[in-house]
Amino acid sequence: IEEENLSFIEESFDGVNVADIASLLEELSMDEAIYVFRAMDLQVAADILIELEDDTLAKVLKEMDETEIASLVECMDSDDAADMLNLFSQKEREDIISHFKDSAKTALILELLRYDEDTAGGIMAKEYIRANKNWTMVQTINEIRRQAENVEKIFSIYVVNNRQQLLGRVSLKKIVLAADDTKIADIYEDEVISVQTYEDQEEVAEIMRRYDLESIPVVNSKNVLVGRITVDDILDVIREEAEEDMQAMSGISDTVDEYDSVIKLTKARLPWLLIGIVGGLMGAGFIGFFEAGLSKVTALAFFIPLITATGGNVGIQSSSLVVQSLASKSVFDDSLGKRFFKGLLVALLNGVILALFVFGMVVLFYGNGTKFAMVVSIALFSVVLLASFMGTVTPIVLDRLGINPALASGPFITTANDLLGLAVYFLVAMSLLNL
Amino acid sequence: IEEENLSFIEESFDGVNVADIASLLEELSMDEAIYVFRAMDLQVAADILIELEDDTLAKVLKEMDETEIASLVECMDSDDAADMLNLFSQKEREDIISHFKDSAKTALILELLRYDEDTAGGIMAKEYIRANKNWTMVQTINEIRRQAENVEKIFSIYVVNNRQQLLGRVSLKKIVLAADDTKIADIYEDEVISVQTYEDQEEVAEIMRRYDLESIPVVNSKNVLVGRITVDDILDVIREEAEEDMQAMSGISDTVDEYDSVIKLTKARLPWLLIGIVGGLMGAGFIGFFEAGLSKVTALAFFIPLITATGGNVGIQSSSLVVQSLASKSVFDDSLGKRFFKGLLVALLNGVILALFVFGMVVLFYGNGTKFAMVVSIALFSVVLLASFMGTVTPIVLDRLGINPALASGPFITTANDLLGLAVYFLVAMSLLNL
Repeated sequence: IEEENLSFIEESFDGVNVADIASLLEELSMDEAIYVFRAMDLQVAADILIELEDDTLAKVLKEMDETEIASLVECMDSDDAADMLNLFSQKEREDIISHFKDSAKTALILELLRYDEDTAGGIMAKEYIRANKNWTMVQTINEIRRQAENVEKIFSIYVVNNRQQLLGRVSLKKIVLAADDTKIADIYEDEVISVQTYEDQEEVAEIMRRYDLESIPVVNSKNVLVGRITVDDILDVIREEAEEDMQAMSGISDTVDEYDSVIKLTKARLPWLLIGIVGGLMGAGFIGFFEAGLSKVTALAFFIPLITATGGNVGIQSSSLVVQSLASKSVFDDSLGKRFFKGLLVALLNGVILALFVFGMVVLFYGNGTKFAMVVSIALFSVVLLASFMGTVTPIVLDRLGINPALASGPFITTANDLLGLAVYFLVAMSLLNL
Repeated sequence: IEEENLSFIEESFDGVNVADIASLLEELSMDEAIYVFRAMDLQVAADILIELEDDTLAKVLKEMDETEIASLVECMDSDDAADMLNLFSQKEREDIISHFKDSAKTALILELLRYDEDTAGGIMAKEYIRANKNWTMVQTINEIRRQAENVEKIFSIYVVNNRQQLLGRVSLKKIVLAADDTKIADIYEDEVISVQTYEDQEEVAEIMRRYDLESIPVVNSKNVLVGRITVDDILDVIREEAEEDMQAMSGISDTVDEYDSVIKLTKARLPWLLIGIVGGLMGAGFIGFFEAGLSKVTALAFFIPLITATGGNVGIQSSSLVVQSLASKSVFDDSLGKRFFKGLLVALLNGVILALFVFGMVVLFYGNGTKFAMVVSIALFSVVLLASFMGTVTPIVLDRLGINPALASGPFITTANDLLGLAVYFLVAMSLLNL
């Protein structure tokens, strides 16, 4: 590559998958990458652009002018083109769009830009095959032939009436097997699962997973077919959501990964750490409040980590279970009351077992008398109940507020549980030990 | 349903998707569910069986005898049939297989049972269309027609030579558009991404996501085509893996959900809580070791939660980032050394900022002198570094040992970090304050 031998580059990339070329480009210096990139066929370059990681993509785009970007974006499928344009500011976006040459394509892309990025409308593509129910196989195959260049993958042909309303679907398999004069109306399936444009991408993913669909038609409020979503886009959605949940749970505030810069990583991690620190300082103030009692029974300090850690663990367990069942929303969810009751039973059972175990261990090994052991185990039991309640309620409340419920398993809740746990522990101690 | 009116049930289920019927059945009492189930068409019943949740499935299967199960399993696609048989003990499995009627299908299922459940071989199906490269379109379409009943979804036709070795693929779209006398050899694509039977299902999922595939052929070590995996199975794999990771992170040991019984939930949660408790007890013993110093400077106890919580938070952040990059294994991973170095930089930066912040706050609000504030902030800084190191190393080590690295963000590591943090804190305190 250093030799900048164009034909050699083209030859060696011939037949290599675009996803792999994208990975290779990420390893090059920016100058080299841009050089190689410009040397490629426009369509291939556009395909590679889609596969690049966000960071590299931003850098590559910065090196190019609007005309160049416009010609690349025009080569993409409408959904990828809209995603790409969403990376730019309003002004840049309009600059790029003004350089488009294909007005039909421009109209499609403009339509997609209207939708929210996280909805079915935002992830759908305008490339799909639609057939009128009165068409014959010959007409349908001609339409497929006409569209074949635009539509890369065909899973199903969507059947519409004269007003473009979705009636059903017919699989490509059936078309292959049907006689030439068969009418669409005779072979299409009228039970077709579709989604509305405004539906959340996570819900679309769940529907496609549930019904094993490889593509799903998107309709507007008048049931007019406006696009389709293919399963490869859904795989990305599912992965994104899983990563977001994991980051929410571990207190990382942005979508970062190990390969980001030190500054970006620090920025993403510091806020939640600071929340933890502030919680810790509040905890310190709180324990300080009981200093007199603590100096009389120093052993109280020994079990602080036991109490806070257990509260944290129980809280995370409870909230994860709730987050998980929120994610796979079933139509037949148990009522809130029933869920709380069950959570309470589990917490009671866990709490009793753990408290008894701790009581025994404290009596055996720390010999401060059974009264002291009682303090620790009663506090532990109360903390298990409280943390379990908090862990169940918080994700449900967050979800109702439209916030990612996975945050409930993150540092915020752990910090809150720490403080609650300390409060319970010292209150129990003060009252039972008369401090 | 109470009226047990068969024809009414059949009618009302007509046209309802099997996944929805399965959800409905889960809501019924077992007797009712079994009754409805037996009233259905064998093929529909088999489809529903696949969609049932594990718990209900186990109960339904217990109510049926081998002959009944065998006839249901025979209606399924080979991959689902094998999954179903894997739920039984060796003996029961053979009983069921002995009741199979279709010997060709039996052979397919037996072959699939040989593979490990989590590998490409374990999730692939034997239903796919294979075409010899010398065939014409007419021959190919005849083969599709012959197989149409068995193969529900056709994405690509796989092209093989006379020894059944995989040569390439041809999309159904191309077949629709090709003339009748075109030969497969003239239109197939010879660049086809395939996986080996032994490949891990998680890797298969990543390959299919990366290359946007809707199905992937599976070959054995001699490149002979043995099956295919479709993307709907992969959606389940991805969801399963995400749930497993989340449960590992939150310290739940089995694959449970909110709807499981109280006993099952307690069993899944108790082990990790006990580990946390044992860690807490060890921590108590550890702090007890410094009792003399602690009784002189009670304020030391105030900052125990601050130290342990920060260690936990930093550890979880670091390990989640590593887990995430392990999951999306790139070919061009940074070397271990480079990753540690970068992790160290981020930890240093975070550590310095947090330590300075805490130093200021302790001096301002807790007025125990700058020396005491120094103890807390130096300990905090060391804990951030240590926890970050532990959080980076643990998932990598677990991954090398073939254990789910997400466990590294769970209660075990938090407990270990708590103990480490306490050790650092008290050692720093003892040496700086001459206790």
